[in-house]
Amino acid sequence: MGDVITSVTNSKVKHLVKLRSRRARDEARSFIIEGYRELSRAVAAGIAIDEVYSCEALYLGSNEPSLVDDVVSTGAHHFRLDEAPFRKVAYRDRPEGLLAVASQFDTDLADLTLGSDPLILVVESIEKPGNLGTMMRTADAAGVSAVVIADPTTDPFNPNVVRASIGSLFTVPLAIAYTDETLTWLSVNGIRFIVTTPDAETLHWEADYQGSVAVIVGSEQYGLSATWIDNAVATTRIPMAGTADSLNAAMATGITLFEAVRQRSA
Amino acid sequence: MGDVITSVTNSKVKHLVKLRSRRARDEARSFIIEGYRELSRAVAAGIAIDEVYSCEALYLGSNEPSLVDDVVSTGAHHFRLDEAPFRKVAYRDRPEGLLAVASQFDTDLADLTLGSDPLILVVESIEKPGNLGTMMRTADAAGVSAVVIADPTTDPFNPNVVRASIGSLFTVPLAIAYTDETLTWLSVNGIRFIVTTPDAETLHWEADYQGSVAVIVGSEQYGLSATWIDNAVATTRIPMAGTADSLNAAMATGITLFEAVRQRSA
Repeated sequence: MGDVITSVTNSKVKHLVKLRSRRARDEARSFIIEGYRELSRAVAAGIAIDEVYSCEALYLGSNEPSLVDDVVSTGAHHFRLDEAPFRKVAYRDRPEGLLAVASQFDTDLADLTLGSDPLILVVESIEKPGNLGTMMRTADAAGVSAVVIADPTTDPFNPNVVRASIGSLFTVPLAIAYTDETLTWLSVNGIRFIVTTPDAETLHWEADYQGSVAVIVGSEQYGLSATWIDNAVATTRIPMAGTADSLNAAMATGITLFEAVRQRSA
Repeated sequence: MGDVITSVTNSKVKHLVKLRSRRARDEARSFIIEGYRELSRAVAAGIAIDEVYSCEALYLGSNEPSLVDDVVSTGAHHFRLDEAPFRKVAYRDRPEGLLAVASQFDTDLADLTLGSDPLILVVESIEKPGNLGTMMRTADAAGVSAVVIADPTTDPFNPNVVRASIGSLFTVPLAIAYTDETLTWLSVNGIRFIVTTPDAETLHWEADYQGSVAVIVGSEQYGLSATWIDNAVATTRIPMAGTADSLNAAMATGITLFEAVRQRSA
């Protein structure tokens, strides 16, 4: 049945709250996975889960106990929480009664294995965790071979990235690297790249996304560093009508990736 | 200089907080616009602003006073708030010191004026305000002639819609109607429509978006009502790789709209 935690001042509870901060995550080399869907995808993807916390009173469905059993069978320790401490550790407004602590997985560029003609998404210095997570989810839907986070501002283990990715964080091959490393890696692997920037003359559908290709997306605020633009085979922009500031960075990424999907399916 | 409000229990402060609820907005026929960018776009679009609230201590730039002057010159009453009451009325975590109460504008389908070969976005029963706002912003970027909200679940004057639309709410022609009214309106105006649904066999880029056309998008949870699917010239889906649940509803809308933009630019 697992241990029961009743107090909001329990040391485990305090540690879980601390894991919202990047420093605490990096020190512990761990991160939090919250929610039924996210946790089941992490288990399916073989993510190493150290601890699972449950609160039956908050369950939304009937499959939660068997998921907890699955997690425990991988070697995780199980703690049951009363509602008050669970609400304290939960990151969501409407917690689903499931939360786990997992080990941060490796994100080395050298470990990515690429098939033939890969489609890669490189995102540089994305600031907003929700955008980074949505980019991961959209890249997953587009069937990319890998996502590379260059010069990261937001770490992918941020709880809002995990949430917005809906578990794609566990299934899309992911690497984190400096921008210059990423450039070298693309070159060594013969992957030409297309850079998205609002200043480009070429429209996003005018570029050629066939073969080994990477789409490079810059930060919401500052765009891409010059080294990307100087070395790209094409710089493209999405044509904008209207009065609002461009498109959301994740939206622009999705529109470009699915143009690549369209061309590559032909 | 305007009146100064120092207390968090001031009746104006209480009323502003109440306007977060739909019932209060509908009773008052008004809504809140928060932030410099949103307020300047509302002024530029000629939205009727009744009251403007400012808190200089929270200003981020130097253009705020002249924007307040602009708002006042349209006939709005100006109130200055101390930081405590402003933080209470602000909807954002990091308020920018500007907030206004505007009159809800008319959203009658009959009032939409369409040019030749309009591109229309119809969204049915969207639940999440952030999605609805992002759809408005994206529709603006795609240059649609109008957005029609059919059988609304979320009202467009919700503060999260205003925020996510980044002011596109004020610039894109907008109508709210029942689904059957919308169908009749499309028919009367000779606008054929393409329905997006995950069950379709046709891929989104295989449909023809030339001429007078509407793209119909359903709710995040329940999709579209059958009457749309039965009457569409085409039902399309975005091809999905990966493991995560489809794409976010706003993302799917953007990908489809920009495929229409691509085809129509040819």
